[in-house]
Amino acid sequence: MTATPSALPAPDAARVDKLAIANRILYNEGVVDGFGHVSVRHDASAGHFLLARNMAPALVTSADILTFDLDGQAIDAGDRRVYLERFIHAEIYRARSDVVAVVHSHSPNVIPFAVTKTSLRPVYHMSGFLGEGAAHFEIRDVAGNTDLLVRNAALGRALAGALGSGAVVLMRGHGSTVVGTSLEQAVYRAIYAETNARLQTQAIALGDVTYLNAEEAALAAASNDTQLARVWELWSRAVAR
Amino acid sequence: MTATPSALPAPDAARVDKLAIANRILYNEGVVDGFGHVSVRHDASAGHFLLARNMAPALVTSADILTFDLDGQAIDAGDRRVYLERFIHAEIYRARSDVVAVVHSHSPNVIPFAVTKTSLRPVYHMSGFLGEGAAHFEIRDVAGNTDLLVRNAALGRALAGALGSGAVVLMRGHGSTVVGTSLEQAVYRAIYAETNARLQTQAIALGDVTYLNAEEAALAAASNDTQLARVWELWSRAVAR
Amino acid sequence: MTATPSALPAPDAARVDKLAIANRILYNEGVVDGFGHVSVRHDASAGHFLLARNMAPALVTSADILTFDLDGQAIDAGDRRVYLERFIHAEIYRARSDVVAVVHSHSPNVIPFAVTKTSLRPVYHMSGFLGEGAAHFEIRDVAGNTDLLVRNAALGRALAGALGSGAVVLMRGHGSTVVGTSLEQAVYRAIYAETNARLQTQAIALGDVTYLNAEEAALAAASNDTQLARVWELWSRAVAR
Amino acid sequence: MTATPSALPAPDAARVDKLAIANRILYNEGVVDGFGHVSVRHDASAGHFLLARNMAPALVTSADILTFDLDGQAIDAGDRRVYLERFIHAEIYRARSDVVAVVHSHSPNVIPFAVTKTSLRPVYHMSGFLGEGAAHFEIRDVAGNTDLLVRNAALGRALAGALGSGAVVLMRGHGSTVVGTSLEQAVYRAIYAETNARLQTQAIALGDVTYLNAEEAALAAASNDTQLARVWELWSRAVAR
Repeated sequence: MTATPSALPAPDAARVDKLAIANRILYNEGVVDGFGHVSVRHDASAGHFLLARNMAPALVTSADILTFDLDGQAIDAGDRRVYLERFIHAEIYRARSDVVAVVHSHSPNVIPFAVTKTSLRPVYHMSGFLGEGAAHFEIRDVAGNTDLLVRNAALGRALAGALGSGAVVLMRGHGSTVVGTSLEQAVYRAIYAETNARLQTQAIALGDVTYLNAEEAALAAASNDTQLARVWELWSRAVAR
Repeated sequence: MTATPSALPAPDAARVDKLAIANRILYNEGVVDGFGHVSVRHDASAGHFLLARNMAPALVTSADILTFDLDGQAIDAGDRRVYLERFIHAEIYRARSDVVAVVHSHSPNVIPFAVTKTSLRPVYHMSGFLGEGAAHFEIRDVAGNTDLLVRNAALGRALAGALGSGAVVLMRGHGSTVVGTSLEQAVYRAIYAETNARLQTQAIALGDVTYLNAEEAALAAASNDTQLARVWELWSRAVAR
Repeated sequence: MTATPSALPAPDAARVDKLAIANRILYNEGVVDGFGHVSVRHDASAGHFLLARNMAPALVTSADILTFDLDGQAIDAGDRRVYLERFIHAEIYRARSDVVAVVHSHSPNVIPFAVTKTSLRPVYHMSGFLGEGAAHFEIRDVAGNTDLLVRNAALGRALAGALGSGAVVLMRGHGSTVVGTSLEQAVYRAIYAETNARLQTQAIALGDVTYLNAEEAALAAASNDTQLARVWELWSRAVAR
Repeated sequence: MTATPSALPAPDAARVDKLAIANRILYNEGVVDGFGHVSVRHDASAGHFLLARNMAPALVTSADILTFDLDGQAIDAGDRRVYLERFIHAEIYRARSDVVAVVHSHSPNVIPFAVTKTSLRPVYHMSGFLGEGAAHFEIRDVAGNTDLLVRNAALGRALAGALGSGAVVLMRGHGSTVVGTSLEQAVYRAIYAETNARLQTQAIALGDVTYLNAEEAALAAASNDTQLARVWELWSRAVAR
């Protein structure tokens, strides 16, 4: 399924640079801390994706970006360590041909929704991509007691199955994973999943919440997708300083 | 109702500069993120107002300020994109001759009040402008299922109607809009609506809240209006750095 | 009771400088925003105190410090505006000979305690100065409906009466006032009243809270008073940058 | 039990430097404020440990690090003040031969768990070290009403007893103490105890929480211990700026 390394062109340099910037944006905007990772599909091969070596996202530069195949094998890592959970990315790219970028994080305000039965739902148009609520993944149902990490292809497939056709899957005892049809969209969704979670937690404390219904959510998501350049400019300037 | 472009003088340069500063203040003080916008009425024409081109408020400079008429048409946009929701501003200026400035935002602590039945009311004198509670706008009542955006004049008129003679209107599933008789006052109100919302949310968790009554609110609002220069100096210096 | 201006020596320059620093510390540590003020008693006259002219605390320098008598009259203001609420300071200095410094603020996490019946009590040793709970001032009981401001001597006396012999008085619909036997102690108390309020609000959400009892509070307060230089060094270095 | 000063080699300079960095990291990451301290065992003597002189952790440099014996006596303090609570460190090192580093703090989000009966338990894999819940220390049970400080060896022994074989002990009315088998691990645990506390408080407000069970916690803790270098690089770079 994956191209042989010798046949694979180098990834587009602009895409590599944008992925490095995405790493730093996710840190600066509070989605990732020392952990978490973001990937983008290879521009020349649907069977490969780009992901940083094992390091804190805030410190990633273009020189730290590696290329992986859909079995989670890095083709150019050399002696550099790779993330244990690269299978999150590999198996979602395998299952979802529409997905171009994946963010895995311990996005803090989202965690409480991952560990309770309260559904993460859109309180405002910015998070219409949540639709009728985020998907949920319970690793215990798949593998019993574990270290919670998606450290092999089987767990990655199970996570991709839980995600289904959605944009966000919450991972019990762990974090969440967000996908998009572009790097900008995936980063946008990761940031506004986090924001929505904070606002929803506050709203629940005030009383019954009126969420966006399915049609509103779909319409709002489509509208916001036309405005991604505006926030990408803001977020990327902030990390360029 | 609007002057013809040929007859309209250029807006006062100091007012344009102040509007650019207001954009950056609202970002720095946490009222807007990559979205949201602030406008001011044209100094030479009650039928026009000034508003940035479609971009993140934090990045706005004086060169980005455009002039709009009350139909929401920009007279000097050229090929620059405009905000989808300029009708919020246009229709409020049309309906409220006393209003000189308008802030539309997704002010985060205010959102939970927009999506529940809990009224946003003043917990302290700083937010006396909230009076007996902020107005509320439910776009579903006007237009059924939408993308929640105020993207035409009819929706703008409905929003202006919900605002009535008040200072703040909460928009379900969306955000809020704040008006003032000066740019300084509108910015002040946007910042303290956000602060009040945070404090009110905490207070509700502690027990029954004693809010300012209508007379206290009116008296406090009048007193605070004499102190706007003090905070404007602070906020504008912070963004000048 | 107050010395005549002609007989009053200039205040100690180091005390003036420290008061300017205290203003900036209170902003940097989140106790004051664009509003709030801190004063210190004159070193050469118990009947006078030092307080900035009407301006945002974050911007105060030594040149902005004025001298007031206990009637709230500035002796050296010239054409500079003074704070409406200087009577808070004047009347507390008149009533409490032990007090050397006063902080008045809208310390945000404290406000919810001022507007509900939940008592602000020490959850940890850092806030032992709260004793068995902060005092409470309801301006309505004294003056009916007002703008909530302590804008004359009668209201200042009522506030001082509510404070009694305590360290902190909460002001319904307004904020709080904290006193100390030194500038360092008053600043410390203002900062830890704010911190304690935040922690107490969280603790109440978790279940029944074990507060410091009266003896623990008194012992802890005495111990902490021996450590003020440590935090003053930290806070003053942070604002010197 | 302790080596005589004359026989004790100077501590390894790299360890001293790392301890100074740990102090600044704990401030930068929000675990300590002007108070709190972190120590590491002496590399050449199990009967000694390194700890800063009495000062704010954020300001500690290598020149401020002193050497103490297990009776809490500094061997090189000269006229420099020492922390009142050095006995926390001394008695834990005496009781726990596996411990190499100790962090004592008033970690803010942890305090609410110290003062209520709600157990601090791991909501996600990052805090697997919490196991089935943090230990709890009630100083009243040991010494009646005090200033809450662990200011002598007897109180230190009681605290070490409450800690038992665990990683974290909550101290009612005071704060918490965290231990590790390396400086990196103790700092990691202090930071993620704080983060977990915040997330757990939010999760409890949303409904019944699924915590990591004992096996998951142990497996996750073991996995995370292999990733400490990643976050240490991030945290230490942040304080080097």
